[in-house]
Amino acid sequence: MDVVCIGSGNVATHMARAFKKSGANLIQIWSRSLDNAVVLANELEAEPVSAFKEINRSADLYVIAVKDDAIAGVAEALKGIEGLVVHTSGATDISILSSFKKFGVLYPLQTFSKNKQIDFANVPLCIESLDKSILEKLRSVASGLTPMVYEVDSEKRRILHLAAVFACNFVNHMYMLSDELVKRHGLEFEMLKPLIMETAVKVQTESPITVQTGPAVRNDEKTLTRHLELLDQMPDLAQIYQTLSKSIKKTHS
Amino acid sequence: MDVVCIGSGNVATHMARAFKKSGANLIQIWSRSLDNAVVLANELEAEPVSAFKEINRSADLYVIAVKDDAIAGVAEALKGIEGLVVHTSGATDISILSSFKKFGVLYPLQTFSKNKQIDFANVPLCIESLDKSILEKLRSVASGLTPMVYEVDSEKRRILHLAAVFACNFVNHMYMLSDELVKRHGLEFEMLKPLIMETAVKVQTESPITVQTGPAVRNDEKTLTRHLELLDQMPDLAQIYQTLSKSIKKTHS
Repeated sequence: MDVVCIGSGNVATHMARAFKKSGANLIQIWSRSLDNAVVLANELEAEPVSAFKEINRSADLYVIAVKDDAIAGVAEALKGIEGLVVHTSGATDISILSSFKKFGVLYPLQTFSKNKQIDFANVPLCIESLDKSILEKLRSVASGLTPMVYEVDSEKRRILHLAAVFACNFVNHMYMLSDELVKRHGLEFEMLKPLIMETAVKVQTESPITVQTGPAVRNDEKTLTRHLELLDQMPDLAQIYQTLSKSIKKTHS
Repeated sequence: MDVVCIGSGNVATHMARAFKKSGANLIQIWSRSLDNAVVLANELEAEPVSAFKEINRSADLYVIAVKDDAIAGVAEALKGIEGLVVHTSGATDISILSSFKKFGVLYPLQTFSKNKQIDFANVPLCIESLDKSILEKLRSVASGLTPMVYEVDSEKRRILHLAAVFACNFVNHMYMLSDELVKRHGLEFEMLKPLIMETAVKVQTESPITVQTGPAVRNDEKTLTRHLELLDQMPDLAQIYQTLSKSIKKTHS
């Protein structure tokens, strides 16, 4: 299977690596910046390109992994391509690719950083197509990359993308706030790392609602008040503390 | 070393197990409820007691692991004890034990659930004493349970306890909200588990501020607006979404 990867960011990098590793023939990496294309293409022994007209038009699969805003432009540039064209966006409807003969979605529900290796077996892939035979093709392609393949339509994919903001982006922000808080008092974030891991490990087997701990779920007003006093000089943290404690109380009342 | 464990809740259970495993002579488990004392004492081959007057008064170490509000009452009941008396509370000052000859704090910075085993090597222990020789004794005791031993005074321990609310309690609440959101749309929380793990794994080696992802840090107003539209029927989630997105933007501006 000849694959062209459109993009060289976090998602593109990890998708391209996964395709290469699965034995696909990764022929080109396109990036708006030739430098970025070259870095990834060199790593994966593909051809780097930065002009749309240089893109090989007879590949089997085109994986669009660019910023959401840029997908429409890429689709326009690839017009007439006969191979299967997919995007990888959580927030973008499948219909953005409807001008192609064969199109679909291959959305990785994971957080990627360029410099952090990830085992693609831990990456759920959400597939979508309006055509049954293309869906089966996508299922086969996705199964070559990860055992976790889910069929998810555009509406539900948007919900997953939103849920990921809570489960990943907001969670990381909580880590950041705890880091800020301990550093301000001469303590090390290091000390919180085992707690962070255990909190994530716990919900791998337990439902989050059943393992909620802390002063809010206990209605421990004394501790809540003391914590707010400690946040006296950090009004933003105090506001978040109040908002989330209120939400925990409401959930568990 | 003869150890008496005062309490039979989450912290008491895991501390008592760790002491037993380390080779200490766990002689008694006290609980207000004899039934609870019996369960833990049977597991660890100790004597269950539920009356203060039955507590052996010649042990080497008394580990108070009861609710914060109950510590003062336990201290009153143990009056005159000559062994080392410690509490395990993050939010309670060491001075609550100052009537004892030898006293200190042994605070485990971890989240415990009774039914979930935990490797105590992953539990940071924060020790405090106003006396140098007792501090060294505590360091030796704690080192028998975990390699992660930190000397932390009462003021800093309160900050750690508050930071743990952000890094654990609020994080778990984010998991819960994402669970609620996907379930409402017929999707499985299962799909988010790899993302949750990877988010926690990432900050074991990277600073949270450097790995923040998502629409807020990108100032992607289009996605932020769409997400709020999706939360139209869930005003509490919408409010949290706005508060945390605003905080992420402010942090990264």
